[in-house]
Amino acid sequence: MSLQALSPKASALKERLERFVEEKCIPAEAEYDEHISKFSGSQRWTEQAVPPIIEKLKAEAKSLGFWNMFLPHPLPDHLLTSSDDNGDTTTRVSPSFYMTNREYGVLAEVTGRSALAPEACNCNAPDTGNMEVLLKCGTKEQQRKFLKPLLRGEIRSTFLMTEPDVASSDARNLETRLTKVVGKDGSVKYILNGKKWWSTGAMDPRCKVALVVAKMDFSHPSCTPPPIDEKSKRGQQTIVIVPMPHPGLKCVRPLTVFGYDDAPHGHAEVHLENIELDEGSVVLGEGKGFEISQTRLGPGRIHHCMRAIGLAARCYELMLERTFQRKTFGKHLHQHGSVRDLISDSKSDLESARLLTLACAEEIDRLGAKNARDKIAMIKVVVPQLTARVVDRSVQVFGGAGVSQDYPLAKALVGLRTLRIADGPDAVHKQTLALIELKKAKKRMHSRI
Amino acid sequence: MSLQALSPKASALKERLERFVEEKCIPAEAEYDEHISKFSGSQRWTEQAVPPIIEKLKAEAKSLGFWNMFLPHPLPDHLLTSSDDNGDTTTRVSPSFYMTNREYGVLAEVTGRSALAPEACNCNAPDTGNMEVLLKCGTKEQQRKFLKPLLRGEIRSTFLMTEPDVASSDARNLETRLTKVVGKDGSVKYILNGKKWWSTGAMDPRCKVALVVAKMDFSHPSCTPPPIDEKSKRGQQTIVIVPMPHPGLKCVRPLTVFGYDDAPHGHAEVHLENIELDEGSVVLGEGKGFEISQTRLGPGRIHHCMRAIGLAARCYELMLERTFQRKTFGKHLHQHGSVRDLISDSKSDLESARLLTLACAEEIDRLGAKNARDKIAMIKVVVPQLTARVVDRSVQVFGGAGVSQDYPLAKALVGLRTLRIADGPDAVHKQTLALIELKKAKKRMHSRI
Amino acid sequence: MSLQALSPKASALKERLERFVEEKCIPAEAEYDEHISKFSGSQRWTEQAVPPIIEKLKAEAKSLGFWNMFLPHPLPDHLLTSSDDNGDTTTRVSPSFYMTNREYGVLAEVTGRSALAPEACNCNAPDTGNMEVLLKCGTKEQQRKFLKPLLRGEIRSTFLMTEPDVASSDARNLETRLTKVVGKDGSVKYILNGKKWWSTGAMDPRCKVALVVAKMDFSHPSCTPPPIDEKSKRGQQTIVIVPMPHPGLKCVRPLTVFGYDDAPHGHAEVHLENIELDEGSVVLGEGKGFEISQTRLGPGRIHHCMRAIGLAARCYELMLERTFQRKTFGKHLHQHGSVRDLISDSKSDLESARLLTLACAEEIDRLGAKNARDKIAMIKVVVPQLTARVVDRSVQVFGGAGVSQDYPLAKALVGLRTLRIADGPDAVHKQTLALIELKKAKKRMHSRI
Amino acid sequence: MSLQALSPKASALKERLERFVEEKCIPAEAEYDEHISKFSGSQRWTEQAVPPIIEKLKAEAKSLGFWNMFLPHPLPDHLLTSSDDNGDTTTRVSPSFYMTNREYGVLAEVTGRSALAPEACNCNAPDTGNMEVLLKCGTKEQQRKFLKPLLRGEIRSTFLMTEPDVASSDARNLETRLTKVVGKDGSVKYILNGKKWWSTGAMDPRCKVALVVAKMDFSHPSCTPPPIDEKSKRGQQTIVIVPMPHPGLKCVRPLTVFGYDDAPHGHAEVHLENIELDEGSVVLGEGKGFEISQTRLGPGRIHHCMRAIGLAARCYELMLERTFQRKTFGKHLHQHGSVRDLISDSKSDLESARLLTLACAEEIDRLGAKNARDKIAMIKVVVPQLTARVVDRSVQVFGGAGVSQDYPLAKALVGLRTLRIADGPDAVHKQTLALIELKKAKKRMHSRI
Repeated sequence: MSLQALSPKASALKERLERFVEEKCIPAEAEYDEHISKFSGSQRWTEQAVPPIIEKLKAEAKSLGFWNMFLPHPLPDHLLTSSDDNGDTTTRVSPSFYMTNREYGVLAEVTGRSALAPEACNCNAPDTGNMEVLLKCGTKEQQRKFLKPLLRGEIRSTFLMTEPDVASSDARNLETRLTKVVGKDGSVKYILNGKKWWSTGAMDPRCKVALVVAKMDFSHPSCTPPPIDEKSKRGQQTIVIVPMPHPGLKCVRPLTVFGYDDAPHGHAEVHLENIELDEGSVVLGEGKGFEISQTRLGPGRIHHCMRAIGLAARCYELMLERTFQRKTFGKHLHQHGSVRDLISDSKSDLESARLLTLACAEEIDRLGAKNARDKIAMIKVVVPQLTARVVDRSVQVFGGAGVSQDYPLAKALVGLRTLRIADGPDAVHKQTLALIELKKAKKRMHSRI
Repeated sequence: MSLQALSPKASALKERLERFVEEKCIPAEAEYDEHISKFSGSQRWTEQAVPPIIEKLKAEAKSLGFWNMFLPHPLPDHLLTSSDDNGDTTTRVSPSFYMTNREYGVLAEVTGRSALAPEACNCNAPDTGNMEVLLKCGTKEQQRKFLKPLLRGEIRSTFLMTEPDVASSDARNLETRLTKVVGKDGSVKYILNGKKWWSTGAMDPRCKVALVVAKMDFSHPSCTPPPIDEKSKRGQQTIVIVPMPHPGLKCVRPLTVFGYDDAPHGHAEVHLENIELDEGSVVLGEGKGFEISQTRLGPGRIHHCMRAIGLAARCYELMLERTFQRKTFGKHLHQHGSVRDLISDSKSDLESARLLTLACAEEIDRLGAKNARDKIAMIKVVVPQLTARVVDRSVQVFGGAGVSQDYPLAKALVGLRTLRIADGPDAVHKQTLALIELKKAKKRMHSRI
Repeated sequence: MSLQALSPKASALKERLERFVEEKCIPAEAEYDEHISKFSGSQRWTEQAVPPIIEKLKAEAKSLGFWNMFLPHPLPDHLLTSSDDNGDTTTRVSPSFYMTNREYGVLAEVTGRSALAPEACNCNAPDTGNMEVLLKCGTKEQQRKFLKPLLRGEIRSTFLMTEPDVASSDARNLETRLTKVVGKDGSVKYILNGKKWWSTGAMDPRCKVALVVAKMDFSHPSCTPPPIDEKSKRGQQTIVIVPMPHPGLKCVRPLTVFGYDDAPHGHAEVHLENIELDEGSVVLGEGKGFEISQTRLGPGRIHHCMRAIGLAARCYELMLERTFQRKTFGKHLHQHGSVRDLISDSKSDLESARLLTLACAEEIDRLGAKNARDKIAMIKVVVPQLTARVVDRSVQVFGGAGVSQDYPLAKALVGLRTLRIADGPDAVHKQTLALIELKKAKKRMHSRI
Repeated sequence: MSLQALSPKASALKERLERFVEEKCIPAEAEYDEHISKFSGSQRWTEQAVPPIIEKLKAEAKSLGFWNMFLPHPLPDHLLTSSDDNGDTTTRVSPSFYMTNREYGVLAEVTGRSALAPEACNCNAPDTGNMEVLLKCGTKEQQRKFLKPLLRGEIRSTFLMTEPDVASSDARNLETRLTKVVGKDGSVKYILNGKKWWSTGAMDPRCKVALVVAKMDFSHPSCTPPPIDEKSKRGQQTIVIVPMPHPGLKCVRPLTVFGYDDAPHGHAEVHLENIELDEGSVVLGEGKGFEISQTRLGPGRIHHCMRAIGLAARCYELMLERTFQRKTFGKHLHQHGSVRDLISDSKSDLESARLLTLACAEEIDRLGAKNARDKIAMIKVVVPQLTARVVDRSVQVFGGAGVSQDYPLAKALVGLRTLRIADGPDAVHKQTLALIELKKAKKRMHSRI
């Protein structure tokens, strides 16, 4: 069976989704860009700056059944209906069936073709990851307040992890602190302080909740520190929920990615200043941050990689078309041997990236994310490189047009380049993969003696 | 389902095959090399030079059921038994069941780990390809005389295609001529003349049959040339069978591959001088050479690629072990970050190569080789590069030992490098892939208008 | 003698220039960016948008003797003084001596380190190329009107070559037409029509002159076409001067380079609509465009490449510093073996790029640009790749900071990537180099017979 | 001045040398290979196996003035003449003038074109390195006994450094021991024990002397160990001279390099068993090995790299010629765009390698080898990669012929690949370069504060 094979239901969905992306999302990109380009400075992060076309696309995606496709399991009842819902069922997973990671991966490639499709389908980062965390680890109250509107696409969210002052690729370096304070009545509250950046979506006017990774700080006099062993464990990362807007959570400036600010979603530098939180703000418990982050990871990587492949595939197809449209030295571009080499290499790169990612997804489905850690690390390193190579060749074939705003190529290239850094630089994931391989090798060597 | 998944039968076979290769074939390599190293000059191509260990391994493989595993379909009756067989059933396919190309691919990777395993299992090139041709296109008489002893592993064969005087990557350049001569009674005979090289196995003392690719030559006065249309078609390549030894088929010298002569099998330059052949020597018919070659191709590529992956995987594992055995600058090699990068990259390369090849095999199984031409071209280009990269890194980690005769690495590296040339250089296959992609792109563009 | 060796005069100049760039230009970059960032939309191309800091830097560069250093030869008298000059001698070449291409190359690397230095020293593209054209090929009148203010840094200029509707890498594709019209009195005028893009600097409010490449059009009824032979020659490119602003020269939109608009200089799409020009507007003569472009080429490539190397060297040094500032997994970045590999590879890349370019410059100095065409093509291909590789590694070491606006890395990376397209894509220059090599090989082969 | 510029004397020498290599050495290669191919097994390392043609070439080189060109300085008198010389002056440096490293580098490229030229000119490894050591560090007695016959080309030599049982890229790992024994009369002798491999030339029947790197061993009861400090220093490597043949120096087997044994020179595994040596056998003094090795290094790297470039340049020219001789798909190979890309890339690689090496040589000449350590490490890493890439492309263009014995390409490719390991693997030299760069960066950072 092919790694791209789908169940009949998913297959039908895919066909309709392809049409939606091709006929609705891609044509809407120009309008989207046009709208946001009218705003400058801080206005780019306001309600008015959000292109209205996106709500139209969301409504259409919902009605066509492309809503929340990423969800791997049925939702608990309290997320589906409630007294104040009046029969509204928009939190339901639209296709009304659940796909494996591999199957959803095949669809994620389709949505990756347009910058607008993931949000239109409520399947965009970082919301999907945040929704997964809240679904698996949140309390009912947390789910009611934050997950439900996220599932309905009414609000957006951000995940605050990376910090500007330390090499965040080593999570132990994080400096954001969650200070525990115990009241005389034994009640517990927390004070959050720190700096974050690359906080994707934090400046989005629709962003109403932040998940923040912080280290426990038991130094407050009111607080009896846990025993050493326990302390070292709890001292690790904790994830807390901060509702937004919040006076202590300050987006101090937007960051650009190779010149693009990606407004109105964007990437913020965020200062966290004395944010008071109650016990209900902690997700899963003190020191559970690493555990939670891990559950986010496997499927998220599949989504990211498949969307990257979709984007590269679109650029590749544009390159193919361009070779029929332009001539040099008396021949169409596609008649030049060196252009054919570019085409052949690109097709191979795309196919490698796709197979690696889908095989990884299949392994997550079969063995669980924990047992697929080697493959998850592998695609994190390989797929951004392969897809960037494809887009780089496409840019070269387009010449000047390729680096301009007239095609999605330039933005795709720097976006894929950035993937080699986002969620940890290559170096970290290569280490992970090598260490797993070395462990296996050691075991083989010992078993032989 | 994983691309490496096997049916329970094949899975059990694989486990036993792994043990056979690890415990019998690999340990026998030293004895094999030692034996052949005692012979020099023309003696390297004699019966005595053939290391006796190979017949022992063949007997063992047969008895363990690893015989002719490559055969995709049941054999016709006349190949299984015959009056002179006295109940011998060694031509039977040993595992007594048939595997898909994908399943056999997984097993071919196992045999690729040892230079001796493919021959031990009667699954070695060019015999498998020749057996496939005779099985699919041969007459009963051709099958009785040549296929049966090949299936039994009693003889070996050669395939004469490449020529020294022209760029053979363009098959239209071939200069070997098959001159048709019509007797006064209407009887037909052919005269074969030309030069071939890279004739793998032609000097092997056990080689008893050559399949030769030639162009039709209708210039003999006795011969009425076919009508133009028909002529151009028939003028194309024809495949004829030459029994060996034959006085007109002269192996003029052995060729070396980066210094290795691969005796006693090796690669010959062959001169064909006025070889007379009757009508029964033609396979399938005049001008059918291209058609026949195509049927050889798909499965053969899978075999070659998977064996290359097996070889690279063995070298990779040797590299991993070496990193535990040597120290520099106070650390084991595996503790150096740059060595871990090599490991990680190599694992990714191996996995990419494996997935591409198995996905191609799966497509051949599902859609037929003709519809998988793009993937077949793709793996021909990509797999030799990926596997050579892995072995190149292994050589580097081994240092001096890596280029010496003490490990299989040096020979593996040049062997894999040579794969980029054998069966057509990369340039040809990249063209093939690009043209298929361009054709698809053109169709997409037209359908949009 | 080292390729980087300088005469004592140039050496002293270099030392001062390094201080100027390090202490004045680089620190001014933030102010420059801050100023322009306050303007949006069409305001980014107005006088007010031009950061005042640049005029300060220009004045300082002039007074320090870094003005017009690129000029290879003494200026003719009429450019140095004139009646309306009142003793002003700012058009003089400041260092008061002339450098070889190789020597100026060494200094161009220094200016390449800051985005502001080339303009500060009046050595920026496309002005230097345009000044060279006017100096070598312009009439006294053209020089007086356009070259003199350019040499004084009072105005800027643009060079209109690339077109949006054709593959401009093949110059024969150009569609802009210069229609010749002959009056009844025999007087000649021209009408210019066409579309251009990647017109760097055309939207700069200080841009007062455009050099436009067009094809001759003799189809106007008033015009007797030249004889065939002559026609085909003259039909080739002609360069004309258009004073700006001009009602027929319309900058229809700014183009972005991977998201950067490079305002207030930038890159425009320009429509040329019925621009009437007199005979005095033609540079050198009808059909002389190719000849003129060639003279621009050699030194321009040296400048571009050396500036690219300077930029990459700055990024490389930032990377080195970063490895001392950040820690992961208990070590400073520079203690990681894989980071050291990046450093070593980058140093080698920089050194290769530098030597290739300076050796090319030395060859232009010794043999003339025409005889160094192979080397000129070579550096055009190789230097952008080598320098981009260096910056790519720097970005990776910086992580998120590397793709942001906080360092010059992100903009450097896309700028260097764009160099593989600007002034002709790699494919064209590889052809040029290969053809020269093949010609030499053919000659060698013949001389042997 | 070009890096390839030569003094008039050297320039004239180069022209004659080019003719000698092209017209004498290259044509003699076939005879050389033919001769050695007649011998097998241990006979390949005997006097008779040495092809007589080499002595003819040596005589011719001597008479033409190409003898010992590598010598950078005049020889001391006692090496030029002596009572038993009877006026023979063959030890004189033939060109009767001395070249810089850069100038000799240009000539070394010429000799690198033929496998026979370096030996013909008495400029081959490891003899040149050994001669330099003896010239700079040897006693008059050592020079008389070993250097003089080496300078005359009467004997050959070997340098025993690398060991089979440890990662020799870290010199501290070496296990060969030089045990000091002090007699009752205070006389000193040494016992040498250990294993070496990759001992190039040790099996050559003409090899009459070995320089062996060993560690001091002061554990013998007769020997008062030096004070700790002194001990650690002296414990470092010492170089001793062993005359050959010697009963305790056993060449246990030849090693192959990717299948080539390079007989009759070759590479041996050598066992050193209780070899007694007197004080006169130590070069320069106990513990001086590292110091001596360093002096060997700089110029040796230039020689190796320039010869590698010469070899790659020859392969490149063969590739160019091949593109005129073969046709595919209706075109000569040189008419295919993708072949032109190979040509262009190869020319650029060759030029980069050449400039890097000559710039390094120029720096050694100007600043001394110690101050050029970064460049010396750089070329050690970069030149083998660039040249191997060139030859790899040449092999690909030649197809099957490229991997065969018919052209020098196959052997060149594996030889250049081996250079990435010989004299230390890339990893070691990248470290060296990175550390020098980091040190410079640190200094820059401090000077700024």
